[in-house]
Amino acid sequence: MDKTKTPPLNPEKRRHKAALTAASENRVDYKKELEAAARNMILIHDPEVLIRMTADTIVDKLKVRHVSVLLGEKDGYVLSLSRGRKQPKLPVGMARVDKENPIIVFFKRFNDKIIFKRRAVLYSQAKALLKSGVIKDKLRSILEHLLYQMEIFGASACVPSYIREDLLGVLMLGSKEDNSDFADEEVDFFIALASHMAMAIRNAQLFKNLEEELERKKQLFIRTTIALAAAIEAKDHYTHGHTTRVTNISMQIARQLGESEFPGINDRFIENLEFASLLHDIGKIGIPEYILNKQGPLNDEERRMIRKHPSIGVGIIKSIKELERAVEGVRYHHERYDGLGYPDGLKGNDIPLIASIISVADSYDAMTTDRPYRHRLSKNDAFAEIRELSGSQFDPRVTRAFFELYQQNRI
Amino acid sequence: MDKTKTPPLNPEKRRHKAALTAASENRVDYKKELEAAARNMILIHDPEVLIRMTADTIVDKLKVRHVSVLLGEKDGYVLSLSRGRKQPKLPVGMARVDKENPIIVFFKRFNDKIIFKRRAVLYSQAKALLKSGVIKDKLRSILEHLLYQMEIFGASACVPSYIREDLLGVLMLGSKEDNSDFADEEVDFFIALASHMAMAIRNAQLFKNLEEELERKKQLFIRTTIALAAAIEAKDHYTHGHTTRVTNISMQIARQLGESEFPGINDRFIENLEFASLLHDIGKIGIPEYILNKQGPLNDEERRMIRKHPSIGVGIIKSIKELERAVEGVRYHHERYDGLGYPDGLKGNDIPLIASIISVADSYDAMTTDRPYRHRLSKNDAFAEIRELSGSQFDPRVTRAFFELYQQNRI
Repeated sequence: MDKTKTPPLNPEKRRHKAALTAASENRVDYKKELEAAARNMILIHDPEVLIRMTADTIVDKLKVRHVSVLLGEKDGYVLSLSRGRKQPKLPVGMARVDKENPIIVFFKRFNDKIIFKRRAVLYSQAKALLKSGVIKDKLRSILEHLLYQMEIFGASACVPSYIREDLLGVLMLGSKEDNSDFADEEVDFFIALASHMAMAIRNAQLFKNLEEELERKKQLFIRTTIALAAAIEAKDHYTHGHTTRVTNISMQIARQLGESEFPGINDRFIENLEFASLLHDIGKIGIPEYILNKQGPLNDEERRMIRKHPSIGVGIIKSIKELERAVEGVRYHHERYDGLGYPDGLKGNDIPLIASIISVADSYDAMTTDRPYRHRLSKNDAFAEIRELSGSQFDPRVTRAFFELYQQNRI
Repeated sequence: MDKTKTPPLNPEKRRHKAALTAASENRVDYKKELEAAARNMILIHDPEVLIRMTADTIVDKLKVRHVSVLLGEKDGYVLSLSRGRKQPKLPVGMARVDKENPIIVFFKRFNDKIIFKRRAVLYSQAKALLKSGVIKDKLRSILEHLLYQMEIFGASACVPSYIREDLLGVLMLGSKEDNSDFADEEVDFFIALASHMAMAIRNAQLFKNLEEELERKKQLFIRTTIALAAAIEAKDHYTHGHTTRVTNISMQIARQLGESEFPGINDRFIENLEFASLLHDIGKIGIPEYILNKQGPLNDEERRMIRKHPSIGVGIIKSIKELERAVEGVRYHHERYDGLGYPDGLKGNDIPLIASIISVADSYDAMTTDRPYRHRLSKNDAFAEIRELSGSQFDPRVTRAFFELYQQNRI
């Protein structure tokens, strides 16, 4: 269109032009804002952050007084966020609307672009439409109810957010700070932004599902290993629950070491430690039952047999790639700091940390449960004994972390 | 700016305006195309598809003769895609450029927006710049080499795709079909599109990492269960490798049933079947070793004991939420179709399909391996025996699928 020959504007167009001019004075480059939003949203996998970003963009860039978001949940829509300088007096998370609420009904069933060109409802535009009398019957009633709801939420505009045909949520926008009407360009921006938000939230949901499935698979491994360890323990009448307790104590010690930024303690180490702790006695599956069940003291040959359990355990798991960093914990959890342990007689810092941690946890649990050859020690006596053996049987770095836990009443 | 008082265009601006007009005649709404691309890209988690989409958008919407994409890999950049009506004569996947290639060097080190306003290189613009003599020394040499590379690839424009400061890849665009220069608006579009592509590819990579981690955790469970089953099998001298073979056969039968769209066979069923097959004999951990190891025939009491293994297995896994659908396979894998099996004497279709499948796989493997009481059957004899027992011991629906596998030489 040749700008030199613009026809006189009708009142509707004049209002839009005023709004446009106001917007351009604020120097909002909608295209740039949209692009930036789309780019930023894609790597954010938290729906709450995505909604907050969307609302902040609207409040900050378009000087809208407030933005609330109704977000779809299982049984209805919940007010998930309220943002802006002047907010409606509705507590977030408390306000719920059910699926029969006129806002939801309108955007689910009646928003077929015939009524409003842009799939968004502007309060003033809808009010004018009702006044004109062209809207009749059921639709008129729905629209009247919708406007009443918008009054409750103090909304000048409702912008739906769809994923394909599913209504993910509705953005409810307050009036602009300069009290101007929303320009077409602004409504287009809201619609596009709401659409980007919807896609980003769906992406985030897919991510969350995958993360949950990952956690389920990890739990499957952990619980099955515990169950099998328990079945093996069932043959060794004195060790019921031993594997679970050793695993818990090991993890606590590692986290305590991590808090003082001990070198090498990270999420991967802690996971390997967890796996190694779960499997540390798995080799007992290869020890004859009569030895595990024997009530009296073991003779030399029997002791020699039972000392094979770390190596048998390694034999069982060594070909499992995902456990390659856990193997050392299984192999060396009966080594001693002074080199008098088994199977290899490793000494001091030659013993991998993963094994030194399991060694303390394993010994503490053995001391505090009844065994064929002696009654259990009290918690305090067991701690005293471990302190006594620090530097001979146990790695002092590990016993230090263990005592910190004890002093803080965390074990 | 007041459009009524436009000053006369200089030649550079006139060229741009011509290109702009050409574009607007083709009615390309860049904003809309970008939005659509950003929206579509976010839920695509396959880098190849994302690159193809980007190239197709450029070829289709902007009538560019061809688009190639150099994509960063470990040791360099590979020509990952070549698209368009007239492609350069370079086979995709074959052309590699190393990190010292002038295209890569330029976009990694020299593209600081000082040389070209828009982080993209237009051949004609760069050529003019060199001619003008303002570019000197090392940069001149780099730019000359860059233009030579663009000639090899037949590229009129190179558009970099960054993730933050990392160069993910470079889009190489051929000339436009109408031979017009690229307008600023078009270059902006390429840059924005390349940026969206980069973010979508990063998102896809995060997805892929998560999926791989999920597969690793599943394998951890599977391999550990197999290793522990093998340790249990070690006590039962005749069943070495039994668990792995039964699991493989069960899965094949289920997939065969799935091919004929048997009701209830889906990915979830097959996963539960896999878990149940892996664990079907886990209850043997609770059977005294002397019974598992006995060379001669079992007496009634011993047989009664060994028949407890399904129930013991259930006892071990029943509290594991992730295995709740697998429990039935463990519990009922010794039931018979005629109701004469154990532990509950279930009959016909009352036996869960998951158990009926394991029953056939378990029996076939038992028949084809040596056992204390008899030598193994040949494959053909075992199939004949299972056919004979179809409808009495075995569910005919399962044996049918099993025979289809046999006839197709797949077992």
